[in-house]
Amino acid sequence: MLHKLQKKTLVEQVYDQIEDMIKNGVWEIGDRLPNEADLMEQFGVSRNTLREAIRALSHVGLLEVKQGDGTFVLSTSELNAVLQKRIKSAAVLEILEVRHALDREAVSLACLRRTEEDLLEMERFRDQCFQFTKESNLEKFVEADWQLHQTITAASYNPLLIDMYAHLFEEIQMSITSTTEMHDASNAGHTDLILAIRNQDAASAVHCVDMYISQFKQIILPKKEG
Amino acid sequence: MLHKLQKKTLVEQVYDQIEDMIKNGVWEIGDRLPNEADLMEQFGVSRNTLREAIRALSHVGLLEVKQGDGTFVLSTSELNAVLQKRIKSAAVLEILEVRHALDREAVSLACLRRTEEDLLEMERFRDQCFQFTKESNLEKFVEADWQLHQTITAASYNPLLIDMYAHLFEEIQMSITSTTEMHDASNAGHTDLILAIRNQDAASAVHCVDMYISQFKQIILPKKEG
Repeated sequence: MLHKLQKKTLVEQVYDQIEDMIKNGVWEIGDRLPNEADLMEQFGVSRNTLREAIRALSHVGLLEVKQGDGTFVLSTSELNAVLQKRIKSAAVLEILEVRHALDREAVSLACLRRTEEDLLEMERFRDQCFQFTKESNLEKFVEADWQLHQTITAASYNPLLIDMYAHLFEEIQMSITSTTEMHDASNAGHTDLILAIRNQDAASAVHCVDMYISQFKQIILPKKEG
Repeated sequence: MLHKLQKKTLVEQVYDQIEDMIKNGVWEIGDRLPNEADLMEQFGVSRNTLREAIRALSHVGLLEVKQGDGTFVLSTSELNAVLQKRIKSAAVLEILEVRHALDREAVSLACLRRTEEDLLEMERFRDQCFQFTKESNLEKFVEADWQLHQTITAASYNPLLIDMYAHLFEEIQMSITSTTEMHDASNAGHTDLILAIRNQDAASAVHCVDMYISQFKQIILPKKEG
């Protein structure tokens, strides 16, 4: 059977190129895109084609057109934008359960695949968490804690898992770890978790995940199933 | 602080309405949308507005415009369409690892939350799998097997998990279970897994998942880590 060649329209080509440039960091979140005339020249397309591609990217949530101000990057990928939309309609318990699933897999894989550099970076963020707790710097603690969890997930070397993780949980992580009662528990847990990953002890690493997810649930859902 | 009201453009309103109609099954995958004139009347919008909404929905992957033939439903949600796109660029091992994560959580939650009806439906699909294996009906086995796994995930009663599961794995599930060597292993595993869920024995249920994921990996990646 012959397969039909997929012909992309000009609009689709511009759409894909802009998406790639955002994905590759040419334009970052919050950046304003160059003006229309420059973009038309850059892509070699008409004003209508360019506008349609930009409108389509806005519908998906990658770009935001602010009338009279310009077009700004809102999100780094379609997956990100769509997961963010989906997450907004999910309950916290739902998200925590999916987080639990991905964290267990991420730490198990990190036990197999982590490099010495990964471990050093984890330890660096763990030390920052301790330091910011001592200084009562809530905002910086939350940021370092999220960096630590992303570093652990990155050590799974599974790009799909890393993508889903980054896009699903940032918001919930930020809101949970902004509760001060989480800090001491987090700091103690971090050391055990990183040690388990260093020792390639997946059972202990998964146990650490079970512990902090259960603590998250207790804080957020005190009267629901643990 | 006052929050600005989110004003939706007409195109966005039509986009959302069409998405909702697809999500709610008014139009199903493969259905042809009514013709332009009818849709313009139904939504009370101009041809340009309607066309832009349809083009935007095509970019995301929900609709497909076939020139001279009409506009067809390609996918049931933005999340589905975007996950499908993302999955196409993922390696099989990546997908299996994420599948492993979600399956472990799904069966654990199913042990807590499954109803008698859920169990009966699981047993019905399990019996179909046995029957289709006996009849050497590959295609129907694959379908029943996928239904069984979706029924188990549905018994987690976690809508986010169910959504992600349905959209991430259909294709890979179909391709793995089309290998005949999987059938006998699947049939034996199904009985143990459903029994564990009936007995609310999460440890045994998770063990069943570990077994079939490991078998999947052996079939697809004979020389990679198990």
